[in-house]
Amino acid sequence: MTPPSSIETSLEGTRDVEAVILPDLPLTVSGVSARRAKAGTLVAGTAAYSNSDFFKSPGESKPKAKRWDHLLSVESKSRTPSSLKSAARFLKKSGIISLGGGLPCPEYFPIEELTVKVPKPPQFTEQECLESGQLLTAGKYDQSEGTGTYDLSIALNYGQGMGSAQMLRFVTEHTEIVCHPPYRDWQCSLSIGSTSALEQTYRMFCERGDFVLSEEYTFASAVETAAPLGIKFLGIKMDAEGMLADTLDVLLSNWDVEVRGARKPHLVYTVPSGQNPTGATQGVARRKALYKVAQKHDLFIIEDEPYYFLQMQPYTDPNAPGLPLPKTNEEFLKTLIPTYLSMDTDGRVMRMDSFSKVISPGSRIGWITASEQIIERFVRHNECSTQNPSGISQIVLYKILEEGWGHDGYLQWLINLRVQYTKRRDTILAACEKYLPTDIVTWNPPMAGMFLWMNLDWKKHPHARTKRIIEIEDEIFLAAVEQGVLVSRGSWFAAEKASFEPTQLFFRATFAAASEEAMTEAIERFGIAVRASFGL
Amino acid sequence: MTPPSSIETSLEGTRDVEAVILPDLPLTVSGVSARRAKAGTLVAGTAAYSNSDFFKSPGESKPKAKRWDHLLSVESKSRTPSSLKSAARFLKKSGIISLGGGLPCPEYFPIEELTVKVPKPPQFTEQECLESGQLLTAGKYDQSEGTGTYDLSIALNYGQGMGSAQMLRFVTEHTEIVCHPPYRDWQCSLSIGSTSALEQTYRMFCERGDFVLSEEYTFASAVETAAPLGIKFLGIKMDAEGMLADTLDVLLSNWDVEVRGARKPHLVYTVPSGQNPTGATQGVARRKALYKVAQKHDLFIIEDEPYYFLQMQPYTDPNAPGLPLPKTNEEFLKTLIPTYLSMDTDGRVMRMDSFSKVISPGSRIGWITASEQIIERFVRHNECSTQNPSGISQIVLYKILEEGWGHDGYLQWLINLRVQYTKRRDTILAACEKYLPTDIVTWNPPMAGMFLWMNLDWKKHPHARTKRIIEIEDEIFLAAVEQGVLVSRGSWFAAEKASFEPTQLFFRATFAAASEEAMTEAIERFGIAVRASFGL
Repeated sequence: MTPPSSIETSLEGTRDVEAVILPDLPLTVSGVSARRAKAGTLVAGTAAYSNSDFFKSPGESKPKAKRWDHLLSVESKSRTPSSLKSAARFLKKSGIISLGGGLPCPEYFPIEELTVKVPKPPQFTEQECLESGQLLTAGKYDQSEGTGTYDLSIALNYGQGMGSAQMLRFVTEHTEIVCHPPYRDWQCSLSIGSTSALEQTYRMFCERGDFVLSEEYTFASAVETAAPLGIKFLGIKMDAEGMLADTLDVLLSNWDVEVRGARKPHLVYTVPSGQNPTGATQGVARRKALYKVAQKHDLFIIEDEPYYFLQMQPYTDPNAPGLPLPKTNEEFLKTLIPTYLSMDTDGRVMRMDSFSKVISPGSRIGWITASEQIIERFVRHNECSTQNPSGISQIVLYKILEEGWGHDGYLQWLINLRVQYTKRRDTILAACEKYLPTDIVTWNPPMAGMFLWMNLDWKKHPHARTKRIIEIEDEIFLAAVEQGVLVSRGSWFAAEKASFEPTQLFFRATFAAASEEAMTEAIERFGIAVRASFGL
Repeated sequence: MTPPSSIETSLEGTRDVEAVILPDLPLTVSGVSARRAKAGTLVAGTAAYSNSDFFKSPGESKPKAKRWDHLLSVESKSRTPSSLKSAARFLKKSGIISLGGGLPCPEYFPIEELTVKVPKPPQFTEQECLESGQLLTAGKYDQSEGTGTYDLSIALNYGQGMGSAQMLRFVTEHTEIVCHPPYRDWQCSLSIGSTSALEQTYRMFCERGDFVLSEEYTFASAVETAAPLGIKFLGIKMDAEGMLADTLDVLLSNWDVEVRGARKPHLVYTVPSGQNPTGATQGVARRKALYKVAQKHDLFIIEDEPYYFLQMQPYTDPNAPGLPLPKTNEEFLKTLIPTYLSMDTDGRVMRMDSFSKVISPGSRIGWITASEQIIERFVRHNECSTQNPSGISQIVLYKILEEGWGHDGYLQWLINLRVQYTKRRDTILAACEKYLPTDIVTWNPPMAGMFLWMNLDWKKHPHARTKRIIEIEDEIFLAAVEQGVLVSRGSWFAAEKASFEPTQLFFRATFAAASEEAMTEAIERFGIAVRASFGL
């Protein structure tokens, strides 16, 4: 059990960089270097307090976010800072000795050095890394010895609820480069992953009995995380670009508290890019339309974007030459679909980012971006629950992202991922075209993410008139297993699973995991199962 | 956001070691080696399912734990396993290719090797480690290449809610060695730290409006974690050995639902060893008495034991020779106070262990031990929130605990910590005896933990008749800051803080953090502040 850690907060480490006035142009990678040079070395010791304001553009010309007091839950509103933490202010007194907090002495942390071998951009393959990768080492006292900004004595001790200053700086800058939010008081906080951040967000905005709005097919774990909290999902019809803005508007405009047995919903959960399970990516117009509906009905939007950087090259005919890759990081950034955060003039979006799909799920590090008010509530909750991401994970990511790559190298890494995922997607689509009966099975080539969503024309099934779709789904699923391939049943992803009676027949396949050979083989097997079931 | 991971579960990795029948004697370190030799190499791949039954004595002669359905919350009772996870059983089919789950391919994890430098038992000092420590390395494919049991391809991917099989094995064996629970179906689950585990436990057992019982002075964060959930703490009078069993019994025997405005409490939160903030350690008789009261009133006990292995050598007169250290690990284990878990015939205890105080808080790894029913509910919650501890932390701890030290070396490390903490405690007590006015300030030499609890005889204060104790506390706190020392005010730790009016005057000092010189200096300063305030 943790003694409140921030009583040891080394405030000397923090300084206000707002003094460095920069024009409010979108931040660039070279802009980060210039800003850091002006701000001087980051000094943030054990459990040092920090927040994104230390690291972002002041944005003085931008409006402040709206307040969300009326949407916050009883639980969230009642969170107060701890009395021990407020004592931290006394540590500012020069020469004070603290017998206050219960932080262990780093002398007893049994790790003197930690080294990782990581790729040197742009040599990103495993083989290149093994042969000529860079070795990055953290010692225990690098900061006091002047050889590093973040060391094991800091990373292995307690931290703050928003994460280490060192990692918070990186994700704040990265978020500004990618999203440049249009309001002033946005901030980031590290999370221990988006599943945890999502549960905390439900608890922040919902009471038992509330509805959360989402795509009609959605990430199953988002529904399952909400259910025990007494929160139901309400699915909105979708097309190839995801949730339909008009349908959402109509639903909310006609909300009847009596009929629904619940107050009008105020929370939308959406995966805008490479949606799980449908692979749908919302275009800019769709995003703008949905944001407008959110403004009209005072909705708060959870923008869950684990696949944002798995946006691929446009899909072309297998025999046509692929489109050229972005030549520079700037070009790459321009190819990315604008985020909700980038159009969020009200501060009504919480964006969830994750390192799981782009670095490693095992790091258990993600981050959220929202208005100062929301981030403050989130961090208060962290302090009484998850605390902060593993310091060992944080220092490993810091070494890679900051010392090994920098923002520039990280963007190169993301371009490299685009190449890999494009190849994988093209492989599975080629297999589908070759092995699936295309008069029965159709799909939209995904522009982002890990998933291919296959629509089977159940009306052509020999039992279409005698069996329920869900029974046919079950039969095909089991026949596929019999053939030696596991795919996911569409009905597993229904937002309103408890009462779900499908009207279409879907299966989800991922192209992220299996080798290209195995994937092709798997689709061939699936094709056999489908043909057999449809009597072809 | 995480696609449910266990759909990829490699079940081939798990095997039932219950076939290896061993006598139900308390497990020893050498018993572990014998058992492992019989069980064969542990093979557990990416997101492999495991549970403690794979790694513990069968305990066939022991009774099973009681069921706790009647104590579980609405939230906890409604948790169900995910449909995607249940699909994992199909992966057992030989040769099946999975396009089911969304686990990323390890090829894209940008860490090829991770190395830590750690002490070689018994050379535990930083200097010894730097000069002759051992380098422990994890590669990406050690398991498939036959060079390791746990590798980066596993640790960097998604895992299971109970943690990796590799770490679960270690903590299960360690728990059996130390606690040998007297019922059959106990299990462990990793946690991301005890603060998070505690929040989850509240949500598992409580509804809004419930009371949790604790020592009258208790870990402030335990109270602050409960408060936003609508859960109040009710403090039980204590003596030098912590909570008083009779007082607890009387309170519960006379519980009046009307007067209290809440149902009779069923959850006790206690820190039995080196309690925070009082430093109190419950003796065996006290533990037995409290367990009996728990049985009488059907209480479930949260045994929060971060300081269990900070049990120190008995305190002796500074001029007397210290008592000899345990010569062997077996001797060391015998010196440890019996745990609640070790006397828990009913399975009514959840023990919380943490690596924060004995390895590093930054690892964010702890574990809980309880009955199978409770662990199952806890793991279901993990799956929809924290997921599992950082895999990077897990593999680093695995390397140290398993490959670097083994159970034997870990126990040696814990003896080494005992030596260090004994020295620190003796330093602060020597300073207290030298610099504090002992007719005003009294204390019990702590037997465990990090904290010294100082009782000031407020009746001798010049303002005893004109000021409230809390005002005198504030004055002395600020005077101490003025002198250059930060200590914690006793009132910050009141279980019933909202309505607290102290009848005694306490301050808490930690001897874990500052150097021995600084600690001595700090106590001297505190003495000056106290004398001035008391007009001495």
